Amino acid sequence: MRWWGWGDPARSPALPPHAVGFLREAGIETAARPPVALGAVRLPAPRLAATVLAQLRDIVGPDAVRDDHAERVLHAAGKGYPDLVRLRAGEPEDGPDAVVHPGAHDEVRRVLELCAQASIAVVPFGGGTSVVGGVAPLRGEHGGVVSLDMGRMGEVLALDAQSATVRVQAGMRAPALERHLGARGLTLGHFPQSFEYVSLGGCAATRSAGQASTGYGAIEKMVLGLRMAAPAAEIELPAMPATAAGPGLRQLLVGSEGVLGVISELALRVRPAPRERVYEGVFFTDFDNGVQALRTLTREHAMPDLARLSDEQETRMSLALAGGGGAKGMLGRLYLGLRGYREGCIAILGFEGAPEEVAFRRSRALKLVRGCGGLGVGRSPGEAWLRSRFSAPYLRDELLTLGVMVETLETATPWSNLRNLHGRVCAAIGDALSAHGTPGIVMCHVSHLYETGASLYFTFIAQQREGDEIAQWRAVKDAASDAIVAGGGTITHHHAIGRDHVPWMLQEVGSGGLAALGALKSELDPTGIMNPDKLLPLSHRG
Amino acid sequence: MRWWGWGDPARSPALPPHAVGFLREAGIETAARPPVALGAVRLPAPRLAATVLAQLRDIVGPDAVRDDHAERVLHAAGKGYPDLVRLRAGEPEDGPDAVVHPGAHDEVRRVLELCAQASIAVVPFGGGTSVVGGVAPLRGEHGGVVSLDMGRMGEVLALDAQSATVRVQAGMRAPALERHLGARGLTLGHFPQSFEYVSLGGCAATRSAGQASTGYGAIEKMVLGLRMAAPAAEIELPAMPATAAGPGLRQLLVGSEGVLGVISELALRVRPAPRERVYEGVFFTDFDNGVQALRTLTREHAMPDLARLSDEQETRMSLALAGGGGAKGMLGRLYLGLRGYREGCIAILGFEGAPEEVAFRRSRALKLVRGCGGLGVGRSPGEAWLRSRFSAPYLRDELLTLGVMVETLETATPWSNLRNLHGRVCAAIGDALSAHGTPGIVMCHVSHLYETGASLYFTFIAQQREGDEIAQWRAVKDAASDAIVAGGGTITHHHAIGRDHVPWMLQEVGSGGLAALGALKSELDPTGIMNPDKLLPLSHRG
Repeated sequence: MRWWGWGDPARSPALPPHAVGFLREAGIETAARPPVALGAVRLPAPRLAATVLAQLRDIVGPDAVRDDHAERVLHAAGKGYPDLVRLRAGEPEDGPDAVVHPGAHDEVRRVLELCAQASIAVVPFGGGTSVVGGVAPLRGEHGGVVSLDMGRMGEVLALDAQSATVRVQAGMRAPALERHLGARGLTLGHFPQSFEYVSLGGCAATRSAGQASTGYGAIEKMVLGLRMAAPAAEIELPAMPATAAGPGLRQLLVGSEGVLGVISELALRVRPAPRERVYEGVFFTDFDNGVQALRTLTREHAMPDLARLSDEQETRMSLALAGGGGAKGMLGRLYLGLRGYREGCIAILGFEGAPEEVAFRRSRALKLVRGCGGLGVGRSPGEAWLRSRFSAPYLRDELLTLGVMVETLETATPWSNLRNLHGRVCAAIGDALSAHGTPGIVMCHVSHLYETGASLYFTFIAQQREGDEIAQWRAVKDAASDAIVAGGGTITHHHAIGRDHVPWMLQEVGSGGLAALGALKSELDPTGIMNPDKLLPLSHRG
Repeated sequence: MRWWGWGDPARSPALPPHAVGFLREAGIETAARPPVALGAVRLPAPRLAATVLAQLRDIVGPDAVRDDHAERVLHAAGKGYPDLVRLRAGEPEDGPDAVVHPGAHDEVRRVLELCAQASIAVVPFGGGTSVVGGVAPLRGEHGGVVSLDMGRMGEVLALDAQSATVRVQAGMRAPALERHLGARGLTLGHFPQSFEYVSLGGCAATRSAGQASTGYGAIEKMVLGLRMAAPAAEIELPAMPATAAGPGLRQLLVGSEGVLGVISELALRVRPAPRERVYEGVFFTDFDNGVQALRTLTREHAMPDLARLSDEQETRMSLALAGGGGAKGMLGRLYLGLRGYREGCIAILGFEGAPEEVAFRRSRALKLVRGCGGLGVGRSPGEAWLRSRFSAPYLRDELLTLGVMVETLETATPWSNLRNLHGRVCAAIGDALSAHGTPGIVMCHVSHLYETGASLYFTFIAQQREGDEIAQWRAVKDAASDAIVAGGGTITHHHAIGRDHVPWMLQEVGSGGLAALGALKSELDPTGIMNPDKLLPLSHRG
């Protein structure tokens, strides 16, 4: 992983050559802004006492505690927009004093006990892909901070094919698990945009949702059991298909974001790998129509496994970036214009499973969608989407190198509020961008369908205000977050709270909810070393 | 509701006349044991101070605090086997000092504050249908105990048809909600065997699962938001289709069994009422074959909405009780015997939804089931099952009046362990019955399918040991519970922990899980007035 961005440094650029022209038409000028060299990144000197380092090495092994520059830079931030702005400028806020790589659950537990004694903050680090500051090396009130990199704990512990359950160490990366399962005709079916790098423990700790969560469910539906090491307790909940034995402790640890303890092992539901997979495009004359169609699918028990409806702006952008030669471009020119869909919205619907089941579900869903004014345009848009499903973070890097801000944020809300919230948040983002002198592009798609509502995923693009990037970003982020919460959405559908969303947590769960979480925190982590200043506002940390 | 049993006292008997003969063939003798008269039920005198009664009346109104004999008897126990044995003998363990009927959330809150001040235990009471001692009027360390009857809080607060969400007061009974929804073409789809009496708050507090939970999900899948009044906090979580804002607080309050606070309002997912409903019978030559077929349905994404597979003993019993004239009897004689299914197992598969969807799913499922050796025998067994789906508690009353013990218990476990656990628990129950000199009938069905496992629901029937009924029951219950937990099952799939399962809670969630729950309890209910001696073992009550 690039220390200043996303993915393999050797990967070739993906931004189409005409993109700069498209941005310029939208009033966004570009300017070369490459990242600094790794050696130029400034970090404070590591502060752990030699005795503590020695104790840590006693626990995890001599090579598994690192405090060299490259390692500290790689663990200095996640992959949010402000993270990358700071890293590329060579000025991360801080770095961990050391990076600790435990190899087993018991090593995690002993590291936590040591850190609790020594008052050292512990920041669990899976794939390091948080976009909300979840892995920022914040030390809170403590004298030191270590990043607890779970990468060595990447094994499959047990596969129960008959029960469709796999038990893994929490540091296992999603692609490694898919490879293991795929060789046995199985899949987890969890494909977030960050799929290439995420760890499964990180997914569970942040309530991650894969792109096909409409069919496969978000990670919370997949976690059947887990093991957590906390400074003052261990919790082990075996894999059960279901239980009525009291409050839902499994769901309490899912989403705990490293502030209660470290998820070290997980039991996950798996499925047969789909024998058939059809992803295709549908056009709607407008966003309203598309929303109505998706809602109809949920009501009629006809949900695809993946559904994603771009609003007019996102449709325009994706057709433009696809260029004039592709299927979408052709459709846009020759066909849609004639039928009144030119200014419309594109949706991708994906169906996976046994061939006869896919055939029936697809045909039924398309019939319902046509009844709502949808126009099926075949597989090529779906296949194009599948090819580029993980590419957005790569494009972001290229845009940053052109001095362009690009950021995403998401919410979920009931169907009856979806159009209202979409309008409010788009307006809030657009207004905030304009107010800071950098009007930009604001776009959105609906995805992750539920019977009762759906997620809205916003993207905004604007010219960076050089030297003032963080304040520029924060103004827009705050405006969007306020609009989301005031407008009846949740502050996050699948990015978690991390550091960035903490100011909205009180509105999300109320003071009673915070009191309950604070009591849990006090019980499991009485000295408050676990991921300080994340998830919980300061007054509710027990 | 009968004070000594189940249902409307005017309802006519349902036990077929030849049942006594069937029991006798199994070695179970009957003897007339009618319940005592209501006036003969012994209860200690109510112990609340007049000042406290006056304060309670100030909060909820003068007629909404009752301490007359009939009211106290009705709230003296739930509907478990030991409850009914004690009530019918006129000797409940205790009664509430008063029954308080709040009319609104704020009244609940004020009652809790008063009771916390006055050291009075509060036992939330919905439909009063707990079979695990969940509504027993235990006072713990407190000087008094009130039963908090939620029956006055039975209104629909809001219906958002577009979002398929309804908000109700927690005391609303399931049939009232189904009537309200049915008039609008909707259904909740939650039909536990206790459907006729359960409150929705009670369902949520106990993680209830309806008979069609395979398709509709258990109550935990339906609860989108809730409001809880606790002695030291209020928690209000709005209806959201999904959120990644930290730990799953909604799922933490679902299953809280009244020990953290009182669920006062709920937002629930609803669905279109099914336009088509097909329930039918399938025979298998043995239980193994049937289990394999159900597992295949889950693996192939071909689950019915209801699935229920009786083992050989339960099949024999239900065919026998259906008598010689019905469809099942005919099939048993004329057809199944010829095909090798006479000693086999019956399954009921139910499909609900839009007609074209039901047709496809049914045909696909039956094809898969036939591939596993299943023999479809048409709709009449399914329709017979639908007609009698709520009748078991009525039959139990009649058996108790004949001096016969009948009790049920349930678990869930992964598919790979299902046959093993079935064998172990049946053996443990059978051995315990025999060891106490009352050999009986032990039977089981698989139901509530998940991709990763299923529930096992055991029924046992034996002659009561007169004068020693509770010890007789406890020996069998303990043996079954030990076998379940040692055998890799959960101590309860949908009956909850209540009082009866507390001894197995440590094995269920471990000491770390109990510590977490104890910390929550201390935070929300610092004086421990909420439903004492339920759910949590004594050392983990904060």
